[in-house]
Amino acid sequence: MPARFEQLRPLFYPRAVAVLGASRHPLKFGFQYLRALQDFGFAGRLYPVNPDLKEVLGLKAYPSVAALPETPDLATVSVPAPAVPAALRECLARGIPGAQVLSAGFREAGPEGERLEAELRDIARQGIRIIGPNCFGVYSPAAGITLMPGSEFSPAAGGVGFFSQSGGGSCDLAYMARGRGLNFSVLVSYGNGCDLEAVDLLDYFREDPATRVVGAYLEGVRDGRAFLAALRRCAEKKPVVIYKGGLTETGRAGALSHTGSLAGEAAAWKAALKQAGAIAAESLPDLVECLMACVCLGEFTGSGLGILAGGGARNVEALDAAGHAGFGVPEVSSETRAAIAARIPPAGGRAGNPTDLANPVMAPSVIGPLMEALAGEPAVDALMLYQAVFYMQKEVRRYRSATPSAPALKLDYHLELAAVAERILKERGKPLLMILPDIASDPAHAEMEEARRAARMHYTSRGIPCFDHAEAALLVLKRLRARNLRVRGLS
Amino acid sequence: MPARFEQLRPLFYPRAVAVLGASRHPLKFGFQYLRALQDFGFAGRLYPVNPDLKEVLGLKAYPSVAALPETPDLATVSVPAPAVPAALRECLARGIPGAQVLSAGFREAGPEGERLEAELRDIARQGIRIIGPNCFGVYSPAAGITLMPGSEFSPAAGGVGFFSQSGGGSCDLAYMARGRGLNFSVLVSYGNGCDLEAVDLLDYFREDPATRVVGAYLEGVRDGRAFLAALRRCAEKKPVVIYKGGLTETGRAGALSHTGSLAGEAAAWKAALKQAGAIAAESLPDLVECLMACVCLGEFTGSGLGILAGGGARNVEALDAAGHAGFGVPEVSSETRAAIAARIPPAGGRAGNPTDLANPVMAPSVIGPLMEALAGEPAVDALMLYQAVFYMQKEVRRYRSATPSAPALKLDYHLELAAVAERILKERGKPLLMILPDIASDPAHAEMEEARRAARMHYTSRGIPCFDHAEAALLVLKRLRARNLRVRGLS
Repeated sequence: MPARFEQLRPLFYPRAVAVLGASRHPLKFGFQYLRALQDFGFAGRLYPVNPDLKEVLGLKAYPSVAALPETPDLATVSVPAPAVPAALRECLARGIPGAQVLSAGFREAGPEGERLEAELRDIARQGIRIIGPNCFGVYSPAAGITLMPGSEFSPAAGGVGFFSQSGGGSCDLAYMARGRGLNFSVLVSYGNGCDLEAVDLLDYFREDPATRVVGAYLEGVRDGRAFLAALRRCAEKKPVVIYKGGLTETGRAGALSHTGSLAGEAAAWKAALKQAGAIAAESLPDLVECLMACVCLGEFTGSGLGILAGGGARNVEALDAAGHAGFGVPEVSSETRAAIAARIPPAGGRAGNPTDLANPVMAPSVIGPLMEALAGEPAVDALMLYQAVFYMQKEVRRYRSATPSAPALKLDYHLELAAVAERILKERGKPLLMILPDIASDPAHAEMEEARRAARMHYTSRGIPCFDHAEAALLVLKRLRARNLRVRGLS
Repeated sequence: MPARFEQLRPLFYPRAVAVLGASRHPLKFGFQYLRALQDFGFAGRLYPVNPDLKEVLGLKAYPSVAALPETPDLATVSVPAPAVPAALRECLARGIPGAQVLSAGFREAGPEGERLEAELRDIARQGIRIIGPNCFGVYSPAAGITLMPGSEFSPAAGGVGFFSQSGGGSCDLAYMARGRGLNFSVLVSYGNGCDLEAVDLLDYFREDPATRVVGAYLEGVRDGRAFLAALRRCAEKKPVVIYKGGLTETGRAGALSHTGSLAGEAAAWKAALKQAGAIAAESLPDLVECLMACVCLGEFTGSGLGILAGGGARNVEALDAAGHAGFGVPEVSSETRAAIAARIPPAGGRAGNPTDLANPVMAPSVIGPLMEALAGEPAVDALMLYQAVFYMQKEVRRYRSATPSAPALKLDYHLELAAVAERILKERGKPLLMILPDIASDPAHAEMEEARRAARMHYTSRGIPCFDHAEAALLVLKRLRARNLRVRGLS
């Protein structure tokens, strides 16, 4: 393993963590971080450091880093900005390999902060890796550590490696990912990135066997050339999705005041990301869906869709989305058409591609054979099924008013459909994209929306990506396909 | 009032409705329609017509239209397609002014259906207006009538007039609109539009004093020139939002088989809609948000935004969205900046435009004065506030675990902010756009999502539009602004 990978591993999988600036005050970072690790269930050794305390949150506190009973793998620093350099020198002297600085008040805050940040960089050069400052640090579920506001992040480890200059954006992303079947190997909020930054993290995730897909929220990078080289190295090996904030004039001003980044020219950035083989995301929600597609659809390079939807407008919407994103909806053979026609209502239905199911809610015993029929067409590379969970759940509610003990979610229904999709993927290598539209806008329909999200979780956890619209699904698939063709030298 | 308006009014506000094809079979349209009207609470007279029945759903049934005790204002026809012409002739003979034909099997189904539909058109010319065939008909909350699958539509009447060639799309739209503060004057699903179609409905809604904003889902129109003339007449008087399905090659094929429409060229359509003064929507969810913006933001023509968000990435996202949609984020005076700085945390916060609140959840007592300060800037025409209800509700959940009697939604919080927004709108004419991001993806966080939707309902019902993303908000606002400038002759 390359040196950088070995160097960063203890920081991301620490067995002992020191917290400099530990506090008993519930609004202080040094309290909140300790409590987050306790709530999250960190099973390693946790060492509060504060000369004024004997104990905090039930943990013995130590007056200094030097007084700790062992050398921690990671230090978390939350003292005020002017006191950070001294704290880091303590860590360096003790031989701690890395520190995450949660404190703000550095480069983003003006000239004095800039001077302090340069001091941090000097300390890092003497032999300690620094994450931050102005960050939320590392979430590493397998190691049991999380971000300060991340005590409710998923405890399950997974295949997504993620890094972000924004702490708030990291939290949003982690919560947005939870219900979409995405779990993380390591997520790093690195803020101003005075030392550890995008290049290090791309190289780390490239080597990391636990990471299958890489994502990032960036506002700027220190060295554009080095970044693009690292990006190319990583993207050759694994899908990389990047959401670059600050691409417009107005956005650039915001990025500068947020993490002190010089955001660079929009057009240059977009072209460079694409050339380096990365997938460019347009927003945080789009980033989540791109990551989901990478995890679920892997090496997909097809172009022909087989579409099933209940209702004409939904079919027209799906067809428009296909046309817009450049996918084909090939005609099917007359045998396939006849096989479909035999299973759908004659009035209101339409057999073919797309197939109009005539009804937003059909049984898996009807839909399953139709999926098989479309997937049997040589020109169909993937299926897209529009499922209006809202209408299904309206029926469930009616049924439950008579039979209150009936379950609130037709789970059998979704498991049965997922099983069909899994079989088709295994036997024919053709994946399913599920469209679950968000219809239940009224809080009075909250149970329908909850059921939709539960269904989404079931599908995505089985590798079936779910989207709110056909348009979103296919604009994501288009970028994944283009990336896969590039990596294989086919475009 | 013009003749067309007077002619259609009884159909949309019927006091007596006949149902031809009334049935006791729960899967038949003629049963479902009757039950929907009963469930919805239709207070007029409801007359099932079926020679084989004496009674259905507690209502006396009649053997024929001729046998009815009075002449209904509207007939609902759900007999099989070949029997529809005879049924309509019965209605015509009785002098019923209009009929909605729910049955499918006409133009969309091939040559025989096409012949049948021509017969319907001939009957219409003899003196009865026909809605449909292959449609769900009229939802008119003030009259107490609804679509066959619309028994749970909102009973509240409002200012949106809507028409759609798709029945399923009409249902989706009505449910999607419920939680966004949108209520309808009349909604018409007119399917194949053999007689009544877009031109009639544009002219009707143009004259209708209850209708303030007009929306439509279209797949095609009978006479493009007449349609554009009617659209121009209507759009001069009221905002009109149109989602045109079937704009791509693939989508056109779908529209043809759905309602038999010839969809026309994409580019020509888009240009024509814009030239006629309409707002073009990109999808059903986008259509809902455009209608919401028209209702809430009316005659807005400004270009300068004052942005408040807690967290750097959220500000960068808002700035990028502003840049992308062509809005400015003007610098504020040093006095305004100082007034803001005095109220936000120094570490992590940023005073100015945008203002970074440093925290995704701030009290109205902090945010209110900041909104006032930004709105006091002459170059700021509208405010945009990013509110992460998810994080707020996480705190509520923590608090409720100690105090179970505490309310699940911090309603006071939202009402207090809404009051500030209402005051600023009244005193300065500057509206607020609320961004409520969808973060709680996991069903385990369903209560947070429910709270977000409840907050959204509270805001939108007070005229404050709510969006999931800054990007969506500003791409909607951009189109509304362009429409308003065109109507005033300013562009």
